[in-house]
Amino acid sequence: MNKLWLNGHVVPADQAKISVFDRGFLFGDGIYEVVPIYAGQPFLFDEHMARLERSLHAVSIPMPIPRAEWLQVIDALSDNIPEGSGVLYIHITRGEEFPRSHLPANDLTPTVFATLSPFTPPSGEPTPVRVSLLEDNRWLRCDIKSISLLGNIMGKLAAAQDGTAEPLMHRAGRITEGATCNYFIVKNNTLITAPADTLILAGITRDWILTLARDNGISVEERAFSIAELYDADECFLASSTREILPVAMVSEQTIGSGETGPITQQLIQYFRQSRPQATHPKVVHENQI
Amino acid sequence: MNKLWLNGHVVPADQAKISVFDRGFLFGDGIYEVVPIYAGQPFLFDEHMARLERSLHAVSIPMPIPRAEWLQVIDALSDNIPEGSGVLYIHITRGEEFPRSHLPANDLTPTVFATLSPFTPPSGEPTPVRVSLLEDNRWLRCDIKSISLLGNIMGKLAAAQDGTAEPLMHRAGRITEGATCNYFIVKNNTLITAPADTLILAGITRDWILTLARDNGISVEERAFSIAELYDADECFLASSTREILPVAMVSEQTIGSGETGPITQQLIQYFRQSRPQATHPKVVHENQI
Repeated sequence: MNKLWLNGHVVPADQAKISVFDRGFLFGDGIYEVVPIYAGQPFLFDEHMARLERSLHAVSIPMPIPRAEWLQVIDALSDNIPEGSGVLYIHITRGEEFPRSHLPANDLTPTVFATLSPFTPPSGEPTPVRVSLLEDNRWLRCDIKSISLLGNIMGKLAAAQDGTAEPLMHRAGRITEGATCNYFIVKNNTLITAPADTLILAGITRDWILTLARDNGISVEERAFSIAELYDADECFLASSTREILPVAMVSEQTIGSGETGPITQQLIQYFRQSRPQATHPKVVHENQI
Repeated sequence: MNKLWLNGHVVPADQAKISVFDRGFLFGDGIYEVVPIYAGQPFLFDEHMARLERSLHAVSIPMPIPRAEWLQVIDALSDNIPEGSGVLYIHITRGEEFPRSHLPANDLTPTVFATLSPFTPPSGEPTPVRVSLLEDNRWLRCDIKSISLLGNIMGKLAAAQDGTAEPLMHRAGRITEGATCNYFIVKNNTLITAPADTLILAGITRDWILTLARDNGISVEERAFSIAELYDADECFLASSTREILPVAMVSEQTIGSGETGPITQQLIQYFRQSRPQATHPKVVHENQI
């Protein structure tokens, strides 16, 4: 097992223990964040940090360490990712408290836990996947990246039982998101995704894809869309920090569009991969050199 | 600190540690239960166990130990409650898993954790409390006694900010429950409480109060009721395993009924206290002796 970060110390993973009175364990009372690292460089770091701070603020947990210190955490754990690409997982709970009480004291010291795991950035032609249409029964603050994830776990379990890796959830027919991703459809060359309200987590990858689309002249709509529109779409894909852009061929028993990776999806994959930090040809430097 | 139960062992509370890879800590992936004990006797034990089994089943976690073994846990920790009255807290997570993955393996060993804490059963005239009306933003499976409780914690925090100890939550005007209790109103001598659907946790104390009411000729309705009906009620009280029946005088800025403990509430408190296991005058034995 590799090493991880726990409350300011680098610890072997199998020795990383917390009290049963940690409120993360007792109540799911905490927030998490996932930051992809390409060629040693965290991608969209400030955006991930801003979301982490927003989530912590929403549940009244103080930000326990300043943004820049996370870069030191990555350094301290860099032996875990010899190839230079990885995923920083950040997990902050309200802290340990005895005796157990729903209402927390307001002077607790947050528990800070982080791992750094190797990650192979997607490459080549992605294989379109099938996902499972499910009712979204989660809470109404999905904009908070909470560790109280049992609803998401149940979605993953139901999808697995249906033979897929991911649910595609809806509330009364309105598409929300996956358990660990956002969804996009393309109709008549317009890219459509659910609005960043309290029913979805505004993915950093989602936002980046919208930026790339707008910058490249693709028409974009952030708005509610229905199951009927999804089934009638020309293209569909899911997006997350680790899967980036993954084409969706089927939703439950329904084929979307041609069932192949659509042209807009293909374009966006290309733009996305070009925008990733690259060791040999860092994008910004390359542009300056021209 | 006293002793607690962790995975089959009695452990000092300050030495009870779990891995950061326990899915309870990572995902709030677990179930809990709270069993009151009066004079050494667990109250409504089978009902609590049945609910624990139902919740575990709903999230596909196997029941890790048979019902009767919980009685041995109480015995093993009985030094914690020298007066004989206490609260058994049971906490079961899906278990430890590395690396972190939303979708669990299906062969995990659940983590079993329990505490036994002293408890002073309510006595004398209760002081009616004020509670805070709040929107219910929790998930749609509140019938599962999950440890993914951040929504409830946020409700408790909002209530505390409003100067009360408990939220009274509603969905679009329909009353659901508190963060840690159920609510009842009385109108024209009829006892009304929200139905035991997926929007509330069917409290064992709630069910017992309904039984006591029916057995004593009080008319009972389990049905949805609105904020308007709440404000128009003659009486209101909250119910939980540790607070039993606690009169509610005010909801936010609105006085309910007279603002005093109403007559039906008073009756139910009396029935409830008579029904609790009693060391000196066990109810059943007493009746047999007459």
